[in-house]
Amino acid sequence: MQTHMRREINEIPEAAARLIEASGKALAEAGQTLRARNPAYLATIARGSSDHAAHFIKYAVELVAKKPVASLGPSLASIYGVNLDLSGAATIAISQSGKSPDIVAMAEAATRSGAVSIALTNTIASPLAEASRHAIDIAAGPELAVAATKSFVNSVLAGLLLLAEWTGDKALMAAIQALPGHFERAVQLVWDGGLPEDLIAADSLYMLGRGPTLAIASEAALKFKETSGLHAEAYSAAEVLHGPVALVKPDFPVIAFAARDAAEQSVADIADGLAEKRAAVYATSALVKRAGTIAHVATGHGITDALALIIPFYGFVEAWSRARGFNPDKPEALKKVTETR
Amino acid sequence: MQTHMRREINEIPEAAARLIEASGKALAEAGQTLRARNPAYLATIARGSSDHAAHFIKYAVELVAKKPVASLGPSLASIYGVNLDLSGAATIAISQSGKSPDIVAMAEAATRSGAVSIALTNTIASPLAEASRHAIDIAAGPELAVAATKSFVNSVLAGLLLLAEWTGDKALMAAIQALPGHFERAVQLVWDGGLPEDLIAADSLYMLGRGPTLAIASEAALKFKETSGLHAEAYSAAEVLHGPVALVKPDFPVIAFAARDAAEQSVADIADGLAEKRAAVYATSALVKRAGTIAHVATGHGITDALALIIPFYGFVEAWSRARGFNPDKPEALKKVTETR
Repeated sequence: MQTHMRREINEIPEAAARLIEASGKALAEAGQTLRARNPAYLATIARGSSDHAAHFIKYAVELVAKKPVASLGPSLASIYGVNLDLSGAATIAISQSGKSPDIVAMAEAATRSGAVSIALTNTIASPLAEASRHAIDIAAGPELAVAATKSFVNSVLAGLLLLAEWTGDKALMAAIQALPGHFERAVQLVWDGGLPEDLIAADSLYMLGRGPTLAIASEAALKFKETSGLHAEAYSAAEVLHGPVALVKPDFPVIAFAARDAAEQSVADIADGLAEKRAAVYATSALVKRAGTIAHVATGHGITDALALIIPFYGFVEAWSRARGFNPDKPEALKKVTETR
Repeated sequence: MQTHMRREINEIPEAAARLIEASGKALAEAGQTLRARNPAYLATIARGSSDHAAHFIKYAVELVAKKPVASLGPSLASIYGVNLDLSGAATIAISQSGKSPDIVAMAEAATRSGAVSIALTNTIASPLAEASRHAIDIAAGPELAVAATKSFVNSVLAGLLLLAEWTGDKALMAAIQALPGHFERAVQLVWDGGLPEDLIAADSLYMLGRGPTLAIASEAALKFKETSGLHAEAYSAAEVLHGPVALVKPDFPVIAFAARDAAEQSVADIADGLAEKRAAVYATSALVKRAGTIAHVATGHGITDALALIIPFYGFVEAWSRARGFNPDKPEALKKVTETR
């Protein structure tokens, strides 16, 4: 019997197409507001998988709109009661359920302080949507697996659509429009070639990325923890050399996410450097010389390329989880909606 | 024979006093510029331990100055060649050596784009200092251990002094002035009470924090990796409930950093919740009921409290590293100055 998680991975192409089709008007309005207000900077408000989506959107905004993006700890509002001065900002709050109290409190504070506050949520009738000036329905459809998959992809996609509307970046918009087709291919890909065997003996592994793929590495590491009890940690491929490399012994697994972008060569070089230490290194790049290559699709744009990388990983981790005797639909000790204050 | 690391931990109180004494003029000038320019937001540029210092300063600025702080990936300038629009910002770049090319490139980009660019560095004659409008000598003195200790503390302290000069926050400035005395007590503290025994069987552990103590947890996790080969990962005490808690089985070690601030009760409650799952949980708080309490000093201010927490941890990890047969002065595969592009 297919798990919810696998079924929802298979739904990603359709959910992406639905979002591109359905949320056009709300996205165009929010994009127009951003053009008119021209915020000095952006700020994101999110937790968990949604925070990884926010991290991806941060890199995309910095690369395309050339505006810096701050990640705000929701506890600033909920615990510390700080009225942050966000008057010159646009904020993007992301929550599948739209109801974690700390996310809602921070979004309310942003709206109150005069920011262009935007919510990306799968639940358009939610406190988060009400707390924000613009609410975008990510249109992922019901998500039954505890581990978010299609809602992560659609959260990122909604952010990219917003960015393309805002900046009028035609190359990005064209790449987004073509994504559902690339996603169709991505859901078919299988990661093999030694990686599953190398993971069997491991307690721990690193997942690397740089730029937008760092957000993908973070999301992938969280999914490993949630569904397979493996301690996967994400690092910037550059940052890993500033200390964390100390853990990389022979056979230590490393998965490096590279997109077809300006960082690809540096990620491949760092992957090869770790492979020289006889770590078990795999990269989503054909540029590696010593590391193994794992399956990925090219989408014709560096940013959408990075997003597409998560799909074969989701498929891999779902299968891996089952093979190791876990139920990826029911991670121990987790609930679908975590409400933090 | 004493290690460099232990000697440099012992030097922290003296180094802190030296910074407070020596860099007053440059800090006052930079603080005055911040008051005059009143930036809409701040941005930090750093890697490794320096990035944890930047993360601490982010929380302090958000709590005290109520301005949001963005963390910029240095690869934006060095790899992607993006000219980020930082015209309305103040930037804080942190580097002990002042010479990692990607940090220098990003600081140059900030200065070029019109930001109030500030460098915190232990090497005042450095490319980073030259690339910035204001250069602050963190005055930590020569640091011989590969694992940064006193330079981390003094980087944070320089940021706090800058913040106090900028905002005129008298309570924060008074707490900073009193810190060297509290640090004298902190270097004497020993973490015991079961923690070392609980770590012996572990491959992995979590280090938790919330607000400024999250930056301390990140710095502590990196030091564990660098000096003891243990896979320690830092999480927000709230964030850990959104998935990563899946790894927390009976006897899984968790160290929760709490300061005497508004977040202390929530960190203590989350620590107790994990202790109920029979994890081996220790917290720097007397508010825990089930988790163990580990030694800490109260400094009379939530922000300086958080900074003081790192000192007994440094002492602990240095001793732990030696006890496990490692040389904390010579982590395998690490160099003191990591130059990334």
